[in-house]
Amino acid sequence: MRGFRTDLAMESISGHGLRMEGVQVRTHHLNDITHTRIRILNERAADLLGRKRGQYVTVEYPGLPRCDTARRQVLSRLVAQAVRSMLPPQGDVLVVGLGNRNVTADALGTRVVERMLVTRHLRQTVAGELRGKLRGVSAIAPGVLGLTGIETAELCRGLVGHVRPTAVIAIDALAAYESERICTTVQITDTGIEPGSGVGNHRLGLTRDTLGVKVIAVGVPMVVYASTIARDAMARLIDAYGIYASGHDEAAQELLRQVADGFLGDMVVTPREIDELVLSVAGLLSDGINQALQSAVDEETLHTFARA
Amino acid sequence: MRGFRTDLAMESISGHGLRMEGVQVRTHHLNDITHTRIRILNERAADLLGRKRGQYVTVEYPGLPRCDTARRQVLSRLVAQAVRSMLPPQGDVLVVGLGNRNVTADALGTRVVERMLVTRHLRQTVAGELRGKLRGVSAIAPGVLGLTGIETAELCRGLVGHVRPTAVIAIDALAAYESERICTTVQITDTGIEPGSGVGNHRLGLTRDTLGVKVIAVGVPMVVYASTIARDAMARLIDAYGIYASGHDEAAQELLRQVADGFLGDMVVTPREIDELVLSVAGLLSDGINQALQSAVDEETLHTFARA
Amino acid sequence: MRGFRTDLAMESISGHGLRMEGVQVRTHHLNDITHTRIRILNERAADLLGRKRGQYVTVEYPGLPRCDTARRQVLSRLVAQAVRSMLPPQGDVLVVGLGNRNVTADALGTRVVERMLVTRHLRQTVAGELRGKLRGVSAIAPGVLGLTGIETAELCRGLVGHVRPTAVIAIDALAAYESERICTTVQITDTGIEPGSGVGNHRLGLTRDTLGVKVIAVGVPMVVYASTIARDAMARLIDAYGIYASGHDEAAQELLRQVADGFLGDMVVTPREIDELVLSVAGLLSDGINQALQSAVDEETLHTFARA
Amino acid sequence: MRGFRTDLAMESISGHGLRMEGVQVRTHHLNDITHTRIRILNERAADLLGRKRGQYVTVEYPGLPRCDTARRQVLSRLVAQAVRSMLPPQGDVLVVGLGNRNVTADALGTRVVERMLVTRHLRQTVAGELRGKLRGVSAIAPGVLGLTGIETAELCRGLVGHVRPTAVIAIDALAAYESERICTTVQITDTGIEPGSGVGNHRLGLTRDTLGVKVIAVGVPMVVYASTIARDAMARLIDAYGIYASGHDEAAQELLRQVADGFLGDMVVTPREIDELVLSVAGLLSDGINQALQSAVDEETLHTFARA
Repeated sequence: MRGFRTDLAMESISGHGLRMEGVQVRTHHLNDITHTRIRILNERAADLLGRKRGQYVTVEYPGLPRCDTARRQVLSRLVAQAVRSMLPPQGDVLVVGLGNRNVTADALGTRVVERMLVTRHLRQTVAGELRGKLRGVSAIAPGVLGLTGIETAELCRGLVGHVRPTAVIAIDALAAYESERICTTVQITDTGIEPGSGVGNHRLGLTRDTLGVKVIAVGVPMVVYASTIARDAMARLIDAYGIYASGHDEAAQELLRQVADGFLGDMVVTPREIDELVLSVAGLLSDGINQALQSAVDEETLHTFARA
Repeated sequence: MRGFRTDLAMESISGHGLRMEGVQVRTHHLNDITHTRIRILNERAADLLGRKRGQYVTVEYPGLPRCDTARRQVLSRLVAQAVRSMLPPQGDVLVVGLGNRNVTADALGTRVVERMLVTRHLRQTVAGELRGKLRGVSAIAPGVLGLTGIETAELCRGLVGHVRPTAVIAIDALAAYESERICTTVQITDTGIEPGSGVGNHRLGLTRDTLGVKVIAVGVPMVVYASTIARDAMARLIDAYGIYASGHDEAAQELLRQVADGFLGDMVVTPREIDELVLSVAGLLSDGINQALQSAVDEETLHTFARA
Repeated sequence: MRGFRTDLAMESISGHGLRMEGVQVRTHHLNDITHTRIRILNERAADLLGRKRGQYVTVEYPGLPRCDTARRQVLSRLVAQAVRSMLPPQGDVLVVGLGNRNVTADALGTRVVERMLVTRHLRQTVAGELRGKLRGVSAIAPGVLGLTGIETAELCRGLVGHVRPTAVIAIDALAAYESERICTTVQITDTGIEPGSGVGNHRLGLTRDTLGVKVIAVGVPMVVYASTIARDAMARLIDAYGIYASGHDEAAQELLRQVADGFLGDMVVTPREIDELVLSVAGLLSDGINQALQSAVDEETLHTFARA
Repeated sequence: MRGFRTDLAMESISGHGLRMEGVQVRTHHLNDITHTRIRILNERAADLLGRKRGQYVTVEYPGLPRCDTARRQVLSRLVAQAVRSMLPPQGDVLVVGLGNRNVTADALGTRVVERMLVTRHLRQTVAGELRGKLRGVSAIAPGVLGLTGIETAELCRGLVGHVRPTAVIAIDALAAYESERICTTVQITDTGIEPGSGVGNHRLGLTRDTLGVKVIAVGVPMVVYASTIARDAMARLIDAYGIYASGHDEAAQELLRQVADGFLGDMVVTPREIDELVLSVAGLLSDGINQALQSAVDEETLHTFARA
């Protein structure tokens, strides 16, 4: 009953036992917020988990999209911390919003890019307290292949060659296995975007290999695939009645394949209120990333500046 | 394994055998378009099916949201015909768009209302060929209870008292049982909107009883509930392995209840591209309803007028 | 050279001398924020100024749409204070957003209504610290005559009869004479909405006379009419060269009439970035009005609740 | 009284006399549609007019944004014809939507790009009647400098290097001198986009010089600058009263400078209903450009395909 689709490393490792060799997991709790840092240390572990070697930080809070100002500040600082720990200390950064702005559940990247404090063009002209403190940031949400005719990865490679950042931050809407994770878990990783991941199923990846610079990926699950729900329902039934034991698993797989290929393939599961959840999550991510990028500027100034 | 949620009469009657007493079904095929007229004739049939007495016309076409101009015209004429057959021959009509405009899958009603040819205020002033031919139409998308603090049904009752239409046409996004029906089936019924129906779960119904005039409801499935997908997956497994026969059904129901109550309750399944599908379907419905309301005006004039 | 169009009482009285009989003006400065309370005390003054008897509070700050968090709080509290001073101490309130949501400069009312803390339907069910403290609020943005076929004033009269509030708060986008006032001045008045006012030119007014309850109007200039710009340019030229003295004024008026009737009639002047300015101003107004309505609840709780 | 700002060649030549040397003008009337082809043939004429050498085709129709289906077809064909006459016969084309999608009057380019038939990525996979007939088209609306930190011209140069089109089509919202031209005039030119032009004031141009391939610019006036309205009003007054003759012109210029610099600089004049006009005009332009690009495909197939 394998084959659930997920873009979260945290879900990939669950079920593999806590102490898998080559994987390091550290979890902290701040009241009801959970902070986890996973390190996949060698290729063997990477292969087993189907995830690339590197770090994956997860910040989880069940009420994330609707929390109060104080908790929002804690969450955005945790995001900032994780991003900052992966960023090169100096140099320009290009922020890329992946996904399709016209598809609500896939628009997270675009919504974050809209809220970025973009500075590359005004470092020379900015006055007052910000002068000399701003890191050069550019940002783009180029749109998906179906709308542009150009692979996002190709397009970004061209931009990196031109803008010459020391790192790329890529923002993407993810698919999870557990529907409770939708809009409640932020994943920050230094491994970039893997091919086939994301709500929009990027055909090519965005990684150091394809772009030539470090790629930090920030993502939040926005959907669960409908086929995952169907698989999961079947799995629970099988567990409960021991069909597995009696060798029915293969046949169940076949059944599911029919179901999923037939009509569930393109369908996604989201909360009904996904439209407003996306905006809320985008606000939190952009606050965190803006803080990480402009660590010499205080939060209030950033906030005012970003709104202006 | 009952309890699938659907707002389509067509799905309620399926599985009850073709010749249920008190139910009349007539189906026509126009190439790949299917037109079905269901009449529920007595209370006994109504109770059995959990649907009100009255007529339900269904227009189905698998490629509906993306069809060519010619087929679009056929489909909008079929919608027009069904609506016209239920409308009183004369008198003003109030069109009400139900649902939440900020929730993509629930915004169908709003999007249709935006495209209505509204004439109540200009019958006196309109010039030329339209003069004397226009039926009085008003239209509103009042918004959902959570955003207004007022039940839609209450609000409509107030409006009906004021505008004094001879009929109300209510547009709503529906939930279906089969995901293939999303954006491919139009239901037109003279029974109004039932309480608890629609993507937004209207708490009160909009019917002749509550509004005092005939209510024609036009709807298209926009979602399947995630719990329906889970139930359906379990049901297929059960069918395949005969768990039902061995009395496990009750336990399976219990399992599902846990799953659904736990976290699937609010979740809906939609195609990823739901944002653009809504606009396409809204265009087709408004074309059809505008034709039905202004049957003295030719299609081209209507189209131009509606766009102006 | 009279006849400039403005919806601001403050602009109507300027030029009439500071001490007009029957008009009381009190101005306070809080750093760079200006707070003015105008009272028009008798019919004679009302006729002279072309404004209704009553109170007009104006809060002005040149950087209003882009101010920092601290100043934003000051401004929203001043709005709250003015609204609260005009509200009946108890009873439900209906908030009405005027204008056309599809016209950026006219969408202010809609955008404010979207951010209102609506409570009428949940006073019984709300838990915890809010229990018993919430004032009943309902809110609607009904849309303009051209889209609904129903006069906003008629529609509101119906709603008032149903919801039975003790007051209505009407939000509207205004037209000003001076373009510096766009998005920088808030007017709060207990005289309601006058016929012909607003960006959308409401045909009927919303006042105690038409609705039967007190109507508090909150508005911000979003446009200057293009004909006002043209008139103003001519006026400045005339002032500078003394054409007026030589009796050319009448002819200039005629010239302007030709220009304005010809093509400027429908045209409005706005800042290029009006789309985002509207959102910013709507946020400030809704914060202020939510505070005024729920004065038993602290700001942070309100903010969290309004976002949930 | 010079210095009116316009992006239309047609307005630049008016007032210079019909038979200026080095300028060729041909006008045709199709009922109430006017089609004009202007050729600026030498540098002297180019300098005098402040426009680049090349061709400028203008299609004018007063009712353009609200015309009926038949006239819409005529207009989109005229646009198609003009674009086709400037396109290289073969090779890929990159369509670039200029302007800021969040500023209604500046979003024309983005709205056109959203409706482009993008084919670069699917020429190999497309089936049936389209196979082998599609020209490779890619399209992007990269966003303005203030939002990306990257000059649009720089960004396009990078893309051209990567995509290797034989021509670029750039779509932009223009500023006009006469407000009657807003949304009623389409300009197609083979001279590209000039620096400082457009509603968004592009800092760099998009021309063969900067991009290395032919650049066809398609634009429609969406605004008139408020300072143009003020200047124009003054000019009319001056004409009427002969101030000019008496040497007051210089002083009037000074007066205007004060006015415009003071507060009108950023202000633009638009029709109130600009939001919907933009969508209508974008539909017409994209129909025309899609036809020009895919001249081997019939209109109906194009239309269906573009909507799918």
